[in-house]
Parts: sequence; structure tokens; C-alpha cells
Amino acid sequence: MTQAEANIGVVGLAAMGASLSRNLARHGNTVAVFNRHYSRTETLMNEHGSEGRFVPAHTLQEFVASLTRPRTAIIMVKAGDPTDQMINDLADLMEAGDIIVDAGNSYFKDTIRREKAIRARGLHFVGCGVSGGEEGALLGPSMMPGGTDESWETLGPILESIAARAEGEPCVTHIGTDGAGHFVKMVHNGIEYADMQVIAESYDLMRRGLGLEPGRIADVFEEWNEGDLNSYLVQITAQVLHHVDARTGRPFIDIVKDQAGMKGTGTWTVQTALDLAVPVTGIGEAVFSRGLSASADLREEAAREGLAGPVQEGGLGDLASDPDRCKAFIEDIRKALYASKIVAYAQGFNEMEEGAREYGWNLDLGAIARIWRGGCIIRAKFLNRISDAYASGGEFGSLLFDPFFKQAIEEAQDSWRRVVTAATGAGIPIPVFASSLSYYDGLRSRRLPAALIQGQRDLFGAHTYGRVDESGAFHTLWAGDGSEIRQGD
Amino acid sequence: MTQAEANIGVVGLAAMGASLSRNLARHGNTVAVFNRHYSRTETLMNEHGSEGRFVPAHTLQEFVASLTRPRTAIIMVKAGDPTDQMINDLADLMEAGDIIVDAGNSYFKDTIRREKAIRARGLHFVGCGVSGGEEGALLGPSMMPGGTDESWETLGPILESIAARAEGEPCVTHIGTDGAGHFVKMVHNGIEYADMQVIAESYDLMRRGLGLEPGRIADVFEEWNEGDLNSYLVQITAQVLHHVDARTGRPFIDIVKDQAGMKGTGTWTVQTALDLAVPVTGIGEAVFSRGLSASADLREEAAREGLAGPVQEGGLGDLASDPDRCKAFIEDIRKALYASKIVAYAQGFNEMEEGAREYGWNLDLGAIARIWRGGCIIRAKFLNRISDAYASGGEFGSLLFDPFFKQAIEEAQDSWRRVVTAATGAGIPIPVFASSLSYYDGLRSRRLPAALIQGQRDLFGAHTYGRVDESGAFHTLWAGDGSEIRQGD
Repeated sequence: MTQAEANIGVVGLAAMGASLSRNLARHGNTVAVFNRHYSRTETLMNEHGSEGRFVPAHTLQEFVASLTRPRTAIIMVKAGDPTDQMINDLADLMEAGDIIVDAGNSYFKDTIRREKAIRARGLHFVGCGVSGGEEGALLGPSMMPGGTDESWETLGPILESIAARAEGEPCVTHIGTDGAGHFVKMVHNGIEYADMQVIAESYDLMRRGLGLEPGRIADVFEEWNEGDLNSYLVQITAQVLHHVDARTGRPFIDIVKDQAGMKGTGTWTVQTALDLAVPVTGIGEAVFSRGLSASADLREEAAREGLAGPVQEGGLGDLASDPDRCKAFIEDIRKALYASKIVAYAQGFNEMEEGAREYGWNLDLGAIARIWRGGCIIRAKFLNRISDAYASGGEFGSLLFDPFFKQAIEEAQDSWRRVVTAATGAGIPIPVFASSLSYYDGLRSRRLPAALIQGQRDLFGAHTYGRVDESGAFHTLWAGDGSEIRQGD
Repeated sequence: MTQAEANIGVVGLAAMGASLSRNLARHGNTVAVFNRHYSRTETLMNEHGSEGRFVPAHTLQEFVASLTRPRTAIIMVKAGDPTDQMINDLADLMEAGDIIVDAGNSYFKDTIRREKAIRARGLHFVGCGVSGGEEGALLGPSMMPGGTDESWETLGPILESIAARAEGEPCVTHIGTDGAGHFVKMVHNGIEYADMQVIAESYDLMRRGLGLEPGRIADVFEEWNEGDLNSYLVQITAQVLHHVDARTGRPFIDIVKDQAGMKGTGTWTVQTALDLAVPVTGIGEAVFSRGLSASADLREEAAREGLAGPVQEGGLGDLASDPDRCKAFIEDIRKALYASKIVAYAQGFNEMEEGAREYGWNLDLGAIARIWRGGCIIRAKFLNRISDAYASGGEFGSLLFDPFFKQAIEEAQDSWRRVVTAATGAGIPIPVFASSLSYYDGLRSRRLPAALIQGQRDLFGAHTYGRVDESGAFHTLWAGDGSEIRQGD
């Protein structure tokens, strides 16, 4: 009979699951491990069994039996049906008070549904977002667990033992009930999309606009990484741009197909924001940009058609040929990137606020910013500032109103406008730079032309409008004498 | 016992249903009418009973009994549960071969589900998009019915009798099976959002940028309505801008609250496009713009904060003060509007193409453009050109490749760039102008910076990348010796 000795278990030993198991074992946990095909378990034991205390199981029954109570099992299998299947199989073998953790990239509404079903069976279900990729899983990820307070009592210390650390603090916190963890992880990924896209737009402006070589642009990103933009993504951008393709001797970036893939979390972030009526324009444009890049047939045909561009195609030539102006424009790009990034985060945090309202979560946005400082893909110095903004208290509707970010944009906005203008003239696409600036200018506008839209809607559909001088809903008899009636009169 | 004499019936006699009933009766149909509360039926009979042959029913049983076979009933009740309820109630009373038509703004996936359920009961179910508002329903709407060929045999002549006419042709065609009609109506509405937003941006540039009074701007739209931009929306824009508020004597547009409402079809269009991975950036930005405009608390706080803008806030003053330059800039705006509108339509038609592929519909995009020429909100001269583009045959991936539109954008693009540049400098938000231009420039780009995104994704998540010189998926050992491995090797 199997002896219960493992304080935590991991089901699913592909790249992420195996790395997480090793991380757990390395930090003093006794880790039960199970995989549908035992060969993966065997490989893990052979290659890394000496890193800590593992309890390999041949069957799920054995796996569950090897866990101490409350039995705590982390599932790391494919999202969708395989995850549902495994949750049910585990629940069948477990008992009241035990804890099932889904650490995959599940859709938060699935997590809400699963939590409800598992709770009804007396068990705890925790949807836990994990960011940092395979390396993060091994060396310290940023983790976003949902679920009950009771499950956090058991799970918290275990996750804290393996999380990344930022300024000494573990990058994990109890996000909220049911689907809160996966919701926050989803928004994290959406912000990641916007962040990557503004970096790509910055690169494009330097490459096509200024005619700089990848290696030189890598140097620029390295320099940027020393300042306000210090972040994992900027750092790896430099690494990618420095990389040379061994086969051709050409810059690696030039041999990579320019068709971006995606796995769905960015799409979910935008779809959810649309449900919540929160504008996340930066994330939206980033997701659409990936879609356009991946539309191979469409782009090939566009190339054959030779669609008209500006006379000075890509034409920042005059800037590029003057070292001082070139340098100044690179600084403009840096500021445009910074401002657009602030907007993307402001929008993402608004989505979390609105999600919390809609789904009844008590999200601590400052704590969320803190656990994103280490381990995850969007980790950045910048997040200290966001954390400070929320810690300094006071309800505020947008990060853009926080004194620090407000001033940062004030200092950046002229550069931002120059960059959008230059790119527009040169025919270089800058969807997120431009969209973020329009959002900012829209937010600032005391009066938007939405009044015209309300007038049109009232004319063609009797949708009514509000008046600036009186509350209530009004309708003009457009096809009649043009007089106004108050709705409900 | 009720005699079966009505060839068509309408259930739900609120504004849209009553108008549709009258339209049907005026065109020689004998129309059975039913409403849950008989008072509405009575009002319709009293006020409009003399317009044609109506058969008012007190009960749904009576209503169904009054229909000739195949019994054909159009439902015009609230979307969602009330529609589901009424469909079931009708189906219970009907027999094999009868036809239930949902003419509300239902979500196309609901229509697919309902069609399947009703088909299983041996009846026909037709989801039918109806555009044109109350006035269109009465005087001739544009209609987009889905459903089987068999149901179209009965329904087609009836709908053709009441549809709007464009150059003599009725603005209705059999769109495709199950949810095709509601899908196409959804995209129609999405395009409408983008169309209205670019008109609003044009207005804003003339109002804030050039300092023109609403009446003068109305004149500009009237002038535009004589040319390429000839359309219902441009026409009613002039009407709204000419309108004076009787109570204050001020321009109507200035007393309307600048918070745009929405009913969900724009949101669905973008969410569906995200599912289909079709970039609909213009529609997306238009939906988000309405969301931002409606965020009253956020905008109030932004106003209090006094977020920094450009030195020349709203500053097209130098243009405005020179009549020739002002006139030239208005022409620039016209061209920017035209180009952005073409992009919005191109994206919407791409969504329909992709939707057809995904859901197995055989959509005739040329025919769809033709039935949008009359009756509906986006009716425009322009749609003849789209219809021609698709009629001229040949598969093509984007309206932007059609010679007519390609040339139109070629002629417009310098103006378009000037408008985006001027607005950017003046701090006036132009989300759809800018986003559409970035899409166009992205589509034109032989090489996008998406290659950098692929490099980043491979580095942090081992997501692999393609090479430009060899097919297959590759991964670089970033943390290792930097060598490349072929996926599957």
C-alpha cells in the first residue's frame, strides 16, 4: 500500500509540469508526480530525480494515495476537455477538503464553472494562472491563484516556496475567489501582447524608418533597458536582435517569417473587455496586428497588387542621415513606447477593475502589480510604480491620473506625437502607438463627437439621447415637426 | 372556427412589428397579427386597419389557425428569452413544413441553435436580419434571411413585396442556411459603427480643428452627399447638424450629451472577428470609442485632472484662418473619410468571407452589397461599386485590391496622411482614421516586425518560428548554445 508522504502532487509532466515539479522538489516539498504515459515520469526521475523528494506514481489511484491531507494536486495538462477529464478523475478519487489546482491557461469562465461543480462535491478547486514559461516554472514563476481562502491556507506556503521573488517578496498572492486568478492571468497576457507590439513598432521605425541594422537596434534596446523601460521583454528584444543565424550568417530577425502566432489569451482579453465595455484599444490593435501578420495569402496578394504608399516610402531618410536628429528621434521613439505602454497598462487595469465589479472579486490591484514584478513575461521596473500608485490609496479611475504616470506622459507626449506623425508620413504602420494616443486624446476631450452619433441614432432608430442641461432621455420627432419629446412623457 | 386566410403573420406589435405588418398589408398580403397584450393589436387595427387586410388574433392559437399553409409567422419580440419562448409556443401549434421567422436582432449563434432545434421538429426556422429601423420596416427595409431553400420559396416573394428597392431590385436575397442572415446583419451593423465614427471624427476635425459652426459643417456634409460619399448616414448627419434646439436656440448637437449608447451588435461583430482571426480594426476602434465616450466617471475625472495636451490644443488655427487652406483641408478630411470607410468595408467583407468558410455558408458578397443599397442604415452609392467589384468575378482577398477602390485610396492617401498628422499634432482623437491607415500600411508592408514577436515568443515560450528560406517550425536554444533545432527532429 502506498504511504501518504507527498505534500503536493503534479499531474501532467510535459515541459511546464516537469519544470514545476522540479521547482517544488528543489524547495523542500515532497512531490507526487503522475503522467498518463509513464515514460515521461521515468524520464523525469532519471534526469532529475536527485533534485529532491519525488514520489512517482504509475496510476492516478497511486498518485492520490501518496498525498498527505488535505491532498493537493496541480493539474498541468492540455486546456479544454483533457483538463475537464482530469479534474473529474481526480475528484472521483479525492475526499472533502482536498484541493485540485488547474495551473493551465484556462478561460476564466471555465474556471468559474469548474469551481462551482467541484465545490458542490465538497472539494476545493483553484484556477491558478502561471506566467514565466518553462524557465519560470523551473526557476520561479509569477502565480495568480483563485479559489477559497481555505485552499489558500494550504496552497499559499507551497506556492510561495517556488515563486519568483521581487525585492524579497514572493511573486504570488491569493487573487480572489473562483475564476479571479485565471482572469488576472488573461489580462496579464493581453498586456503582454500590447507590450510586444509597441516594441515591434519601435523596432520597425528604427529599421525601416532610420535604416539601422539589427545589431545597432539591439544596442538601443540594451540602453533603454537601463532606464524607465527596464523589463524582461526589452532585454530579450536586445538578445533576439543581436542573434545571428548560424546557417546564413544573416541577422536572425531577417530570416524569421514575419507571421506572428497566438494561443488565444489575447483574443479572450479583448472579447472580455468588449463584454465589460472597457476600451482596451492597445491590446485590441496588438491582437489584430498579429492576425494581419499571419494572413499570408492576403499579404502576398497585397504585395503583388502594389498598393500605393507615400512618395517618401519608409522615408525618414533625412532624419537617418543626420546623426543628431537620428539620435533625437530614437529618444522620441523611446518616449512613445513608454507612453503607449502606460496606456496599455491603464486599460488592462481598468479591465481588471470592471471584471472585479462584474464577477464580485475583491482584487487588490497593487498586490497584482507587485507579483508581476518578477517571474512573469511582463516583469518590469515600471510595475513598482503601478504598485505604488495603487498603494498610495484613493480610488482612481485610471493609472493615467496617478501623478507619476501623468507626468511621465506629459513629458512624453510631444515625442509621441512626433513619432505618430513621422510614421504616418513614411507609411510605416504603428497601430498601437496611434491607437493609444487617440485613446489618450479621447480621454482628455471635454467634448467628444459622440453627441453626433447620438443624434444619428435618435434619427434613424429613435434610440433617444441625453441633454447636457437636464437629466432624462429625449427624442426628437425628426420626421415630424422637429419638436422634442421626453421619454416616458 | 377561424378560417385560414392570412398568407403571413406577425407576432409582436411594438414599433418594428407594427410597421412591418402595415408594410405587408399595404403590399397585398393578408396579415395575421398577434400581440401578448391585445391593446396593441387593437391600436394597430384602429389606426391602420384600413391600410390592407389584417386578421387580428386574440390568442396564439387563433393566430396560427388563421394562417394558410405553409403557415408563415414572423416573430418581432424582444431578443433572448422572450424570442425563445415565442418560437417554442409557435412550434407547438404548427405542423411540418410551416415556417417560423425571427426578424429581431438575434445573435447568429442563437439562430444556428434554434434552427437546428426547430428543424428537428420538422418545421423551418429562418433567422432574418432587418435593417432600416422603424421607418424602413414601414416603407421598405433591407432584409437578410437565412434558412433553407424551401422556406425561401414561400418567404421570398412575401419579403420581396415589402423590401426597399434599389434601381428597381428588391433589397432582399436568400443569404444562406441557418444563421447566415443574422451573421450578415451583424456585420452590417459593425460596418455602421465604423461609418458613424469616421463621420464623427470628420465633424470633430471641422468643429474643434477648424472652428466651424455646426450649420456650416452641415453644408459640407450636404456637399459631400452629392459625390462619392453619397449615403443615408451623410445625409442625416447634415440634418442633425442643421437642427436647432428649440428650447435654447443653440445648435442641437451642442445640447446632446456626448455619451454614445450601443445595443450589442457592434460588440458581437468584433468578438466574432476575433474568433475568426480577421482584423476589423475600424469597427473595433468604433466600438471602443463609444465605450470611452460613455465612461462618464472616467472622463469627468480626466477633465478634473487636466491631462497634458499639445501646445497647440485643437490647433488647426492657422489652417482655419486661411480660407483656401481651410477649404483644402476639408477636402483632405473628405478623402480621409472615404479611405477609412473603404477599409472598414473591406474588413467587414473579409469577416463575412471567413464566417462563410467557418460556418459552411455560400455567401454571395456581390448580392449582399446590392441589397444594402436601399432600405438599410448604411445604404450608399458606394455599394454599387462593391457590388461591381464582386460581380466582376475573380477571387480576391480584399476590396482594397479591386481596381476601383485601389485607385480611390491611391488618390486619397496623401490627404489621409495629412489628416492623421494634423489631428495628432492638435490633440484631436481620430481612432478610426489612424487605425485604418495603420491597417492599410500594414497590409502593404512586405515585411512586418511580427518577426521580432516570433523571436520573443520562441525565446520565452519555445513557441517556435518559421524561416523565410525553408518550411517547417524551428526553435533556437536561447538559453543554450544558440543553435537551432527543427521541430520534430
